[in-house]
Amino acid sequence: MNRSQLFEHIKSKGSYLCIGLDTDPSKIPRHLLSEPDPVFEFNKQIIDATHEYCVAYKPNLAFYEAQGARGWESLQKTVEYIPKDIFTIADAKRGDIGNTSSLYAKAFFEQMNFDALTIAPYMGEDSIKPFLSFKNKWTILLAHTSNTGSADFQLQESKQTGRKLYEEVILRSQDWGTPDNMMYVVGATRVDKFAEIRKLAPDHFFLVPGVGSQGGDLSRVSANGMNKQCGLLVNSSRAILYASSDKDFSRTAAREAQKLKKEMEGLLNANL
Amino acid sequence: MNRSQLFEHIKSKGSYLCIGLDTDPSKIPRHLLSEPDPVFEFNKQIIDATHEYCVAYKPNLAFYEAQGARGWESLQKTVEYIPKDIFTIADAKRGDIGNTSSLYAKAFFEQMNFDALTIAPYMGEDSIKPFLSFKNKWTILLAHTSNTGSADFQLQESKQTGRKLYEEVILRSQDWGTPDNMMYVVGATRVDKFAEIRKLAPDHFFLVPGVGSQGGDLSRVSANGMNKQCGLLVNSSRAILYASSDKDFSRTAAREAQKLKKEMEGLLNANL
Repeated sequence: MNRSQLFEHIKSKGSYLCIGLDTDPSKIPRHLLSEPDPVFEFNKQIIDATHEYCVAYKPNLAFYEAQGARGWESLQKTVEYIPKDIFTIADAKRGDIGNTSSLYAKAFFEQMNFDALTIAPYMGEDSIKPFLSFKNKWTILLAHTSNTGSADFQLQESKQTGRKLYEEVILRSQDWGTPDNMMYVVGATRVDKFAEIRKLAPDHFFLVPGVGSQGGDLSRVSANGMNKQCGLLVNSSRAILYASSDKDFSRTAAREAQKLKKEMEGLLNANL
Repeated sequence: MNRSQLFEHIKSKGSYLCIGLDTDPSKIPRHLLSEPDPVFEFNKQIIDATHEYCVAYKPNLAFYEAQGARGWESLQKTVEYIPKDIFTIADAKRGDIGNTSSLYAKAFFEQMNFDALTIAPYMGEDSIKPFLSFKNKWTILLAHTSNTGSADFQLQESKQTGRKLYEEVILRSQDWGTPDNMMYVVGATRVDKFAEIRKLAPDHFFLVPGVGSQGGDLSRVSANGMNKQCGLLVNSSRAILYASSDKDFSRTAAREAQKLKKEMEGLLNANL
């Protein structure tokens, strides 16, 4: 999917919601556990109930790898089940030497047909470039993450430039990719930094985790972070997926997703 | 496996060789492709032929994920096949927010029973700590990697401390883990830095990629990097695995592994 298609979907749906499919077998409703593939069954019902309110789904790979080969199959089925007009993100946080990154790129972009993959930037240019050569596929670089540990290294200031590490990541990587094939992860818990970060990358999309369970504020993130093509995909996982653990879980998830969607619709009208 | 067991194996075998099982179906001998699981069959024959010369095996996960659920099964069978006295490293370069890192830790340490896992440090303390709470399991943090892109961010000097990012990673992480549950990745291509890096972490093991295909020098790495308990696991992947692409591949791999082992035996005698 390319950038203008993504923006068209955002406008037509009035939503920039990304739903994180962090599906944990210990948290899904008990009645699903007798299904042949409980994780896929859960995802299927969540997708059926929420797809009109979101523009992206983001499975975090850890939840699938924790189930071994079986989890990998649930993931594959889930990606195939997601409607084609919805953007798909493999939240994998990969990154390795060049020839190895190429293998990850093929696995996620070609075999599984994800639109996008999250990448950790620590190993630099040659670990990132292999992902950027796939047409209409996206590399989403970790920049300033939502967790407390993000302060440990991401805030280190450079002696040479005075910029923080996450700022260097955002600036340097613009020599390698463009707003048409690269996005950045910026946690909603960094809302005070959003306006500043937006100046460093005016046209790029940001993938924003940390609204909901982690305490980020959607309206402030949106006011400070939106650009002319929206430029935001705001993620919510647990607050939607596990809003109820009963048989009505998909209806409750839909209600939570719809609530966020309505708020986003208002924010799009106010800020675009 | 704990540190003294690892050191005992190194002494009794006269080797600190780690063999990288970066098994690529497009590079393995053609006659194996008719096997039900060519990747596992290749690994099995490589392990049979080389296990007396090495103390560790390190599958890089990208090569298995590129094969989907099937690759995951080949990986599981491979780990189970490795003799119990050999240290196993999942080269996964993972790292995520705390609750997600916990899932990765369970997947690799409990379900697959790896001894160690490589981790990218970009997200900081809470992304690393979950891995450190497993007894006799190891977290191997990327510090100064062997690829050219390692210069992009790892060499950024801190305004506050004057130290480079990889030095900060080595020092800060020693508040979180110990030489008994943490190692560092230091590329053999950084041989000029080894003595200096050893001072920052005198007792830790270093996992050293980049000897062989990438051009690192084993004797210089060893002279500058060895500590009283050896403290080095030197990795070779392609130079051993693909030394021959004919039916004699395992014999040729054994010869390459034995050559490195003999050199290591001499270096252990000279430096310990």
